[in-house]
Amino acid sequence: MSLPHGSSHDALLVLNAGSSSLKFSVYRVDADEQLHLLASGGIEELGAAAHFWAKNSRGELLGEQRWPGRAPAPAPGPLGHSGAIDFLTEWLREHNGGGMRLIGVGHRVVHGGLSHSAPELVTPELLSYLQSLVPLAPLHQPHNLLAIRLIAQRLPGLPQVACFDTAFHRTAPGVSQAFALPPTITAKGVRRYGFHGLSYEYIARALPDYDAQAAAGRTVVLHLGNGASMCAMQACKSVASSMGFTAVDGLVMGSRCGSLDPGVLLYLMDELKMDARAVERLLYKESGLLGVSGISSDMRALSESQDPRAIEAIELFVYRIGRELGSLAAALGGLDAIVFTAGIGEHSAPVRAAICRAAAWLGVELDEAANLAGGPRISTTGSRCAAWVIPTNEELTIARHCLALLSQQEEGTRHEQQHA
Amino acid sequence: MSLPHGSSHDALLVLNAGSSSLKFSVYRVDADEQLHLLASGGIEELGAAAHFWAKNSRGELLGEQRWPGRAPAPAPGPLGHSGAIDFLTEWLREHNGGGMRLIGVGHRVVHGGLSHSAPELVTPELLSYLQSLVPLAPLHQPHNLLAIRLIAQRLPGLPQVACFDTAFHRTAPGVSQAFALPPTITAKGVRRYGFHGLSYEYIARALPDYDAQAAAGRTVVLHLGNGASMCAMQACKSVASSMGFTAVDGLVMGSRCGSLDPGVLLYLMDELKMDARAVERLLYKESGLLGVSGISSDMRALSESQDPRAIEAIELFVYRIGRELGSLAAALGGLDAIVFTAGIGEHSAPVRAAICRAAAWLGVELDEAANLAGGPRISTTGSRCAAWVIPTNEELTIARHCLALLSQQEEGTRHEQQHA
Repeated sequence: MSLPHGSSHDALLVLNAGSSSLKFSVYRVDADEQLHLLASGGIEELGAAAHFWAKNSRGELLGEQRWPGRAPAPAPGPLGHSGAIDFLTEWLREHNGGGMRLIGVGHRVVHGGLSHSAPELVTPELLSYLQSLVPLAPLHQPHNLLAIRLIAQRLPGLPQVACFDTAFHRTAPGVSQAFALPPTITAKGVRRYGFHGLSYEYIARALPDYDAQAAAGRTVVLHLGNGASMCAMQACKSVASSMGFTAVDGLVMGSRCGSLDPGVLLYLMDELKMDARAVERLLYKESGLLGVSGISSDMRALSESQDPRAIEAIELFVYRIGRELGSLAAALGGLDAIVFTAGIGEHSAPVRAAICRAAAWLGVELDEAANLAGGPRISTTGSRCAAWVIPTNEELTIARHCLALLSQQEEGTRHEQQHA
Repeated sequence: MSLPHGSSHDALLVLNAGSSSLKFSVYRVDADEQLHLLASGGIEELGAAAHFWAKNSRGELLGEQRWPGRAPAPAPGPLGHSGAIDFLTEWLREHNGGGMRLIGVGHRVVHGGLSHSAPELVTPELLSYLQSLVPLAPLHQPHNLLAIRLIAQRLPGLPQVACFDTAFHRTAPGVSQAFALPPTITAKGVRRYGFHGLSYEYIARALPDYDAQAAAGRTVVLHLGNGASMCAMQACKSVASSMGFTAVDGLVMGSRCGSLDPGVLLYLMDELKMDARAVERLLYKESGLLGVSGISSDMRALSESQDPRAIEAIELFVYRIGRELGSLAAALGGLDAIVFTAGIGEHSAPVRAAICRAAAWLGVELDEAANLAGGPRISTTGSRCAAWVIPTNEELTIARHCLALLSQQEEGTRHEQQHA
């Protein structure tokens, strides 16, 4: 089955390379520079028994493939990132029914550091700067950069754009980005960066269409997925985030602990004799909803369970969100609206209801029926603080940036040619 | 110079043994079981050049002594806890002008664990339980317990009472005391205990005399000293605290960092090659106001400085308090009053003013003149949320508990004798 759309056209590829997965989306760019999703999918379990799938914009399967854990010669071992990029570029070529011309690749890059507050065209200099940030995000950044390098090898000359998950938060005041650590440590880049910026940026761009007052005022966006964070926006600019230096801080997540007394880490090392790797595994992989419940990191599974530990895990998840909402409202000096997004935020009506009930003191009055129906507005018309459900779209944000930078570049080239 | 009060009387000794200091207060117990402060003081720098001082309740010096860093034989080496207890009990005996009879010693003990929510008479069983909590508070608990053991040796038979800094927070709901960690870790006692409980207890007892509505409602107490934390009280019972498992979490403190992304500790170990002791030193001794300013851990010194780093440190201190106030207001579902206490809270009008301004969104309206005058009420009469300054008195709280338990014991003995 070919990618939809028959005639010759430009297209953009969006990549999100994680430690064990490669997610992608393909957008057609029409004559008016509008973006249309052609396909999205992923290759998961790259280090073991990999699994590829791709769907069109209506969710219909375009392709699927599975690899054994250890493939036979001539390609022994797991697929890996390199094999995944090879497979994906080949699959795109094979399924290119209508003469699709790939004009650029946009990448989600977790860390842009303090100085990069906007997406950028990849250059050797940028890559080398992003490489220097690896110590700040050792679990994610290397995979993001590897994908960029692999694409540069396979499709040389194709423009690539790096979109940073930290960039959106660079508008926050210094005091909101600081830890109370000495300058020697702060100067190495130990700051509260905030993440999920591509999601918050999407919401910030969409918000005026839903609620002009919230877009001009004080809004907290709750990005509640397997990773979860919250962002306080003043006039759609970030002023604070629940995530800090890494993506493990803040809210209770699928398997991440969120906020934790730093003294706990000293205890884990001194008393339980855990080393840094064991601590990292505990806090990133064995905590959060999974750790507390002992059942699952998936909110859907927990919501369906009657196990008291599942109930306890959800209660803690909701309680910490309520506390963080108060903290972020303080950063804004009050609250005009809250926006739910990402997996849990978009799809779990009971969790949204519990959060809204805990936020009653901030003026949130839930419209139960609207919430069950999925919104978009889930607060009553009289609610002092509005509540919304807005589906996020990080891939589209990346594709938009990619297109904008390519157009800019083209503009620049044309300008140079005219004046040569 | 003798201790004040000439006639024969009962007295209580209150001890607060830290890692390098021993603080004490002596209270006369009158016939109506009222407590009157006779003397308070301390021996500081126990591990180096120790310094003793004692004052009466009017702040007049009763005695002072200095030891060289390394005393000559027959008592070589620093004074230490043992020497300090020896000196103090001897000093009390020598200055006992009016035939003071010591009837008990009350101790501040940092950790009472989950099961001890009230002060207790020291027994070998209790001591052994408290010893088992040392891993939860390795920097403080051992010194507290050493002071109890030394008194038991020097003054055998004298009743001792342990008052726990964690006890007041045991009324908080489970969800407020939990980290999102697996039960295997939680079961070892890794929970949000909260500290400064003896201070909060004092305020909770005093609050009805100041503000009946706040005492019945939702109040956040800000204990802002060299160590600093905040406690959310519903009807004078703790429902949440900014401090967690240890006294390093929460607010920015004199030299402690407060809230910190746990990922920062992994970075410090992995990238800066710091071991647990170096991390501990950084977070406890080299961070906070001292770390950020590079000038001092003392708010007085920073307030008088024009150095931009001093200003930055104070701004961060105030900002984090503002964020935490929102978080604790969420735990309470709103806010009726805030109470400032401890060194900075009682004495720094500019810091109180900055905090109140940041809390305007919660209905706090500062009365500038009242604030400069030191309160007690520092909010306007029309303020939706009241603001108070109430001096704390942890030593008196300990003395009260000590007296109450001794009276109970006496009552019990009398009861037993009557029914023997």
